[in-house]
Amino acid sequence: MTVPKAFFFDVFGTLVDWRTSIAREAEATLKPLGYALDWLAFADAWRGEYQSAMDEIRYKGRTFEKLDVLHRGNLEKILPRFKVSGVSEAQLRHLNLGWHRLDAWPDSAPGLTRLKRQSMVAPVSNGNISLMVALARRNGFPWDAILGSEIAHDFKPKPRVYLAACEALDLPPGECMMVAAHSSDLAQAAKNGLRTGHIARPNEHGPGKGEPAPTVPVDVAGANLVDLASKLGI
Amino acid sequence: MTVPKAFFFDVFGTLVDWRTSIAREAEATLKPLGYALDWLAFADAWRGEYQSAMDEIRYKGRTFEKLDVLHRGNLEKILPRFKVSGVSEAQLRHLNLGWHRLDAWPDSAPGLTRLKRQSMVAPVSNGNISLMVALARRNGFPWDAILGSEIAHDFKPKPRVYLAACEALDLPPGECMMVAAHSSDLAQAAKNGLRTGHIARPNEHGPGKGEPAPTVPVDVAGANLVDLASKLGI
Repeated sequence: MTVPKAFFFDVFGTLVDWRTSIAREAEATLKPLGYALDWLAFADAWRGEYQSAMDEIRYKGRTFEKLDVLHRGNLEKILPRFKVSGVSEAQLRHLNLGWHRLDAWPDSAPGLTRLKRQSMVAPVSNGNISLMVALARRNGFPWDAILGSEIAHDFKPKPRVYLAACEALDLPPGECMMVAAHSSDLAQAAKNGLRTGHIARPNEHGPGKGEPAPTVPVDVAGANLVDLASKLGI
Repeated sequence: MTVPKAFFFDVFGTLVDWRTSIAREAEATLKPLGYALDWLAFADAWRGEYQSAMDEIRYKGRTFEKLDVLHRGNLEKILPRFKVSGVSEAQLRHLNLGWHRLDAWPDSAPGLTRLKRQSMVAPVSNGNISLMVALARRNGFPWDAILGSEIAHDFKPKPRVYLAACEALDLPPGECMMVAAHSSDLAQAAKNGLRTGHIARPNEHGPGKGEPAPTVPVDVAGANLVDLASKLGI
């Protein structure tokens, strides 16, 4: 297999461990206010509102908004569920920007750095540009460009998001590879003509709660991003 | 003065030497076909069509197109002027992508690397994303994101281009600094609330034909990008 000219990346779950990072961020903000919650359950609940918030924009005509804005709405939705109240505006803003402070899986930056030697690398995430920049600066992701939802003004798995990324780099979809730990993302990328690479994140949603292997046909599958690079001969 | 949270950069002329690079690219393509032109005059003529092509989009209702597309139209406009004909489509495409192979002024990458330690750095150029990525990969520009015309769907000096860049990074204009070797660009950035930094490129259009100093008020002026960083205490 020839090496793709560009690698596109899902980010939440694929390159960064949103779950334990958001649990830490929630604890850092809310524990000093006297709350003792199941912080991982809080992270799961916040992330649990992710798809339905994007569905409003994807399928129900709501004007495009950055993911930061959707995260804020989702946060306000779950706080009462955990009986949290009286959080100041500054604290809410800080907690919402916890999504800018997620930590990477250990192989992410080394894997990206290897792939970048031969090919272009860019996130094609539902996260907004400023969020992607913050994660890159925190974790050393050497992006060539920030692509994804804010360029396309829509959210994956809508075709426009994959295709806008290819168009931004002047590449036909067949010269681009979408890399994700989620088979659903890869199935949609493939439907739009992109090549696909799966990496295993078996603990994304907690121990044993992630995809250890793809459930759809993919062009390459790796145990992690460095393994995927090796399997492509990079 | 506090350090801006983001530095935005003009690219053509400010970070890269388009004139001698395009002269070299034109010679590399056209000399083997038997042409002996004044290659610097060819570069000047090609660049000379730059503003009027963008004006069609900025002010005359033409749908936004990437700069690569405008460069191609401009190339076809000037070839007859130099009595060049019979160039194959593949050669025209290669020559047009000469704008992706421009060389940087020697202080550009070291200066950007220094500024990036403290602040975000992004091009806010009229060039398209793929062109900016190619120049960055060739010259080691460590961009955090590629902003500019393709994000804004318009060309500088239209306000939207400056403001879309600030919005992409969630920053008010006053926390962003536009850096350019062109006073006209900086005057427009300032009008939109951005801070401004000038760097001298006295030979951009040939010996002594560039701006040795700003002709408008700016927040900081440097002999080059490393000097500008030093003047900001970075």
